[in-house]
Amino acid sequence: MAPSSEPLTTERILVATEEVLRRHGPAKATVVDVARALGVSHGSVYRHFRTKTALREAVTKRWLDRTTEALAAITATDADPETRLREWLATLFAAKRRKAGIDPELFATYGLLAQESGDVVDAHLVELTDQLTGIVREGVARGVFAAPDPAVTASALFQATGRFHDPGYAKEWEKPGAQGDFEALVDLLVRGLRA
Amino acid sequence: MAPSSEPLTTERILVATEEVLRRHGPAKATVVDVARALGVSHGSVYRHFRTKTALREAVTKRWLDRTTEALAAITATDADPETRLREWLATLFAAKRRKAGIDPELFATYGLLAQESGDVVDAHLVELTDQLTGIVREGVARGVFAAPDPAVTASALFQATGRFHDPGYAKEWEKPGAQGDFEALVDLLVRGLRA
Repeated sequence: MAPSSEPLTTERILVATEEVLRRHGPAKATVVDVARALGVSHGSVYRHFRTKTALREAVTKRWLDRTTEALAAITATDADPETRLREWLATLFAAKRRKAGIDPELFATYGLLAQESGDVVDAHLVELTDQLTGIVREGVARGVFAAPDPAVTASALFQATGRFHDPGYAKEWEKPGAQGDFEALVDLLVRGLRA
Repeated sequence: MAPSSEPLTTERILVATEEVLRRHGPAKATVVDVARALGVSHGSVYRHFRTKTALREAVTKRWLDRTTEALAAITATDADPETRLREWLATLFAAKRRKAGIDPELFATYGLLAQESGDVVDAHLVELTDQLTGIVREGVARGVFAAPDPAVTASALFQATGRFHDPGYAKEWEKPGAQGDFEALVDLLVRGLRA
């Protein structure tokens, strides 16, 4: 990347970090590598990220947050809860499948980073389950879902659909039956939820 | 293992192979290693297993078959289908958790062997899903389950519970919430199945 006169924001550093990851894989994404890609001094990157770990956690969080934000938009609509639930699960599956399909190497790189950044991933999973809890709670409030404890049910829904969002299953997502399997599973779960 | 005067059956070879795997890990389970453990000539083992691959597939199948057989007994009872389904899923989870917990190294060794023996594992998964299909079909026949296509529903049930039988999740099984998560999921799935 050529030096630029733009101010060195956190976002610019993270964009450059992702580009370094895309080109060179996980081993090369250090503060020094990213500073070089941006044509700036190490010190100016260190002012934003004091360690390699902090940089790598931040870029992993940014990658995960893109999914979280797309899903938050569905959570926040006023559609009936069953529609919202189906869209939420379908969007999560589609987002993961797209990420894994478009650039499998970057997907695998983030998979490795995620293993290093356990706290970031745990927080991401809590955010997603909280969104699901909101949908389930709304369904209970409207009398269309039965769930004695919406948080427990949301966690069960998230775990039940793991095959369609856990990166460990990425190889399964392009198989011919995957979409049909996903829909059969969601139908079964939605039936189980109905009041 | 000391030489023995017992006849050299396939079962004896497989018992010895598992013992070699337990002691030495996956790298050492060759025909020569197993013959040495049994105190017999290579040739006498080769008469049962003509390649290292055949031997390793057979010992993997034997390991998987122990679970299949325990589950087949539940499939075959005359209990009401919901009880059978719950017991089947609980027994599968318990069997996997026990295998992973009692001897994690042997469990990991079989995990590696399973990756080599894709056909054996696929056949195992088909057997298990067929057992589930039988339970779902019986529930439909008795009017207690609703499932337009029992095989599709059985596959959805199996995939939905993957977190509690897929070896990739073994680390999750000993966490404090795992049993409660499992039960919440099964409750949701059973509700979804009811006619």
